[in-house]
Amino acid sequence: MGGDHAPEIVVAGAAIAQRRFPDVHFLMFGDERRIGRLIDAEAGLRAATTVRHTELAVSADDRPSVALRQGRNTSMQLSINAVRDGDAAGVVSAGNTGALMAMSKVSIKTLPGIDRPAIAAFFPTLVGESVMLDLGANVECDVHNLVQFAMLGAAFARSVLGLERPTVGLVNVGAEEAKGREPVKQAAAILREGSPYFGFHGFVEGNDIANGTVDVFVVDGFTGNITLKSIEGTVKLYTEYLRQTFKSSLTTRLAFLLARRAFKKMRARLDPRRYNGATFLGLNGIVVKSHGGTDAFGFANAIGVAVDMTANGFNDILTRELASFAAEQPTKARAAVS
Amino acid sequence: MGGDHAPEIVVAGAAIAQRRFPDVHFLMFGDERRIGRLIDAEAGLRAATTVRHTELAVSADDRPSVALRQGRNTSMQLSINAVRDGDAAGVVSAGNTGALMAMSKVSIKTLPGIDRPAIAAFFPTLVGESVMLDLGANVECDVHNLVQFAMLGAAFARSVLGLERPTVGLVNVGAEEAKGREPVKQAAAILREGSPYFGFHGFVEGNDIANGTVDVFVVDGFTGNITLKSIEGTVKLYTEYLRQTFKSSLTTRLAFLLARRAFKKMRARLDPRRYNGATFLGLNGIVVKSHGGTDAFGFANAIGVAVDMTANGFNDILTRELASFAAEQPTKARAAVS
Repeated sequence: MGGDHAPEIVVAGAAIAQRRFPDVHFLMFGDERRIGRLIDAEAGLRAATTVRHTELAVSADDRPSVALRQGRNTSMQLSINAVRDGDAAGVVSAGNTGALMAMSKVSIKTLPGIDRPAIAAFFPTLVGESVMLDLGANVECDVHNLVQFAMLGAAFARSVLGLERPTVGLVNVGAEEAKGREPVKQAAAILREGSPYFGFHGFVEGNDIANGTVDVFVVDGFTGNITLKSIEGTVKLYTEYLRQTFKSSLTTRLAFLLARRAFKKMRARLDPRRYNGATFLGLNGIVVKSHGGTDAFGFANAIGVAVDMTANGFNDILTRELASFAAEQPTKARAAVS
Repeated sequence: MGGDHAPEIVVAGAAIAQRRFPDVHFLMFGDERRIGRLIDAEAGLRAATTVRHTELAVSADDRPSVALRQGRNTSMQLSINAVRDGDAAGVVSAGNTGALMAMSKVSIKTLPGIDRPAIAAFFPTLVGESVMLDLGANVECDVHNLVQFAMLGAAFARSVLGLERPTVGLVNVGAEEAKGREPVKQAAAILREGSPYFGFHGFVEGNDIANGTVDVFVVDGFTGNITLKSIEGTVKLYTEYLRQTFKSSLTTRLAFLLARRAFKKMRARLDPRRYNGATFLGLNGIVVKSHGGTDAFGFANAIGVAVDMTANGFNDILTRELASFAAEQPTKARAAVS
């Protein structure tokens, strides 16, 4: 029931996802009358879906703390509980981000060795795709959070991008060791010790994101959130300039007609719907947050992220890696910050 | 002598600027033999230029603290001293940013009421141009720094963009009052009290930068630097996608030929050289930092920023405003953070 166009785009997105992943079964939480009609309108979806009725829903403006206390029987809380109880492999929501994070932390809990979950998502780059985290779950991050994000992001890149040993960079204001904020410098000191699961590249800068210099960009949630939205805004600005350019004369209109197909392909590469589905990493279960304003195609992609993570056994792999890190590194990690 | 292509592009940039601003006189600091020849190759530049010879220069890799201690007779230090001594109205350099800031702070000093200078620059937006600061001078910013940046940025927008009462926004992870980091929330509480010199819009998010939601975007130097470089990287990425699209077939090549002129105009709107010339605001003198990798056209634009600020009496206006703010607001400002 979450997001700007729910439940319509959620059901339509499930229908698209069902054609892509015929083995997936959907548990939908919400108003049965509204959802039921939408499901019946999609060929084949009814057989792949169970609806659990509730009339309550978290709204976009609810404070996370309020949603947590008063939202026991909302569609969001019930869907998260289904993951906790093993009824669902993962949850996908287009609803209130803060509430989804707060409820997930309390209900599903974090993995051993993880203090705080982070929000991660993919970005298009000059050479492919990269992961960035945290995109806004934690406005303040200490050295341990950043080190944990590196491990979470690397496991995510391995599981969804299929990279054997992803490279990890810490986002900073310069490449030199002496530059930047204290937690970032301390995290670099720990990560330089090395890991069997990823290669630490060192510091990276803002322009490295679009360049795809590393597979995983680690940053605090304040900077990450602002960077993410700045990039989205810049893509929108450039696209608008492009539109104006093609509309500027008869000749440019003709040029557009000639190149229309190629441009459609280009815009698809930057389409935010393609990169929809931010993942809450570090929880003891799979939670994927869809953009609230997305459409059915975008929501289907968010479902795809959850399916990929489940199919690749993401949380099992991550749990093993965290346990081995905890066994090897605790002294190093503490020493570096004392 | 600073930057990747000095002194060639500096002298060539001065020649371009001289045609735009025939009344400006240049004091150039550096190796007289190398500079002299370049000046003589530019028609009319010799008469508008005085060269002060020094063989020493700060290099790009010098640590600011080292440059400060050992760089007494470098071209950078001497040019800054010329501003301090009233020999020059402002200094423009494509050299080492950290060294330029450190030397400027010690030699020129900050204005009364300003704890730390900030780096500011213009951005293209959907509706025109906006200013953002700090772009990297201060990786940690407290509430007072942010409030001072708002005043500095507003005075800059007024002086260079000619806006009577610019709007100011604090960059944050959400528009709601409860969101974000403590210093940002505290700064908002002070800025909400109002100012005769600018309108405070409240919190803005990353996508508001490209939208041009406000005239002045205030942010800490860590986030600002990473955001700036992310935006530059995204423009480069989009441009590369565009190039690939136009090269993808014979038809698209033809389309490019048809629209070439219009595209040249579009790219000019996003041309980083157009926005070259980051200003160190809050100093008791005008200091403009050109991108180290720019060309003569870009360097001329950086000179243009210094000329505009001088012509509009930027620092006199700012000093008056700071004095009136100090008289009105100190109690409020202190109360809000205690």
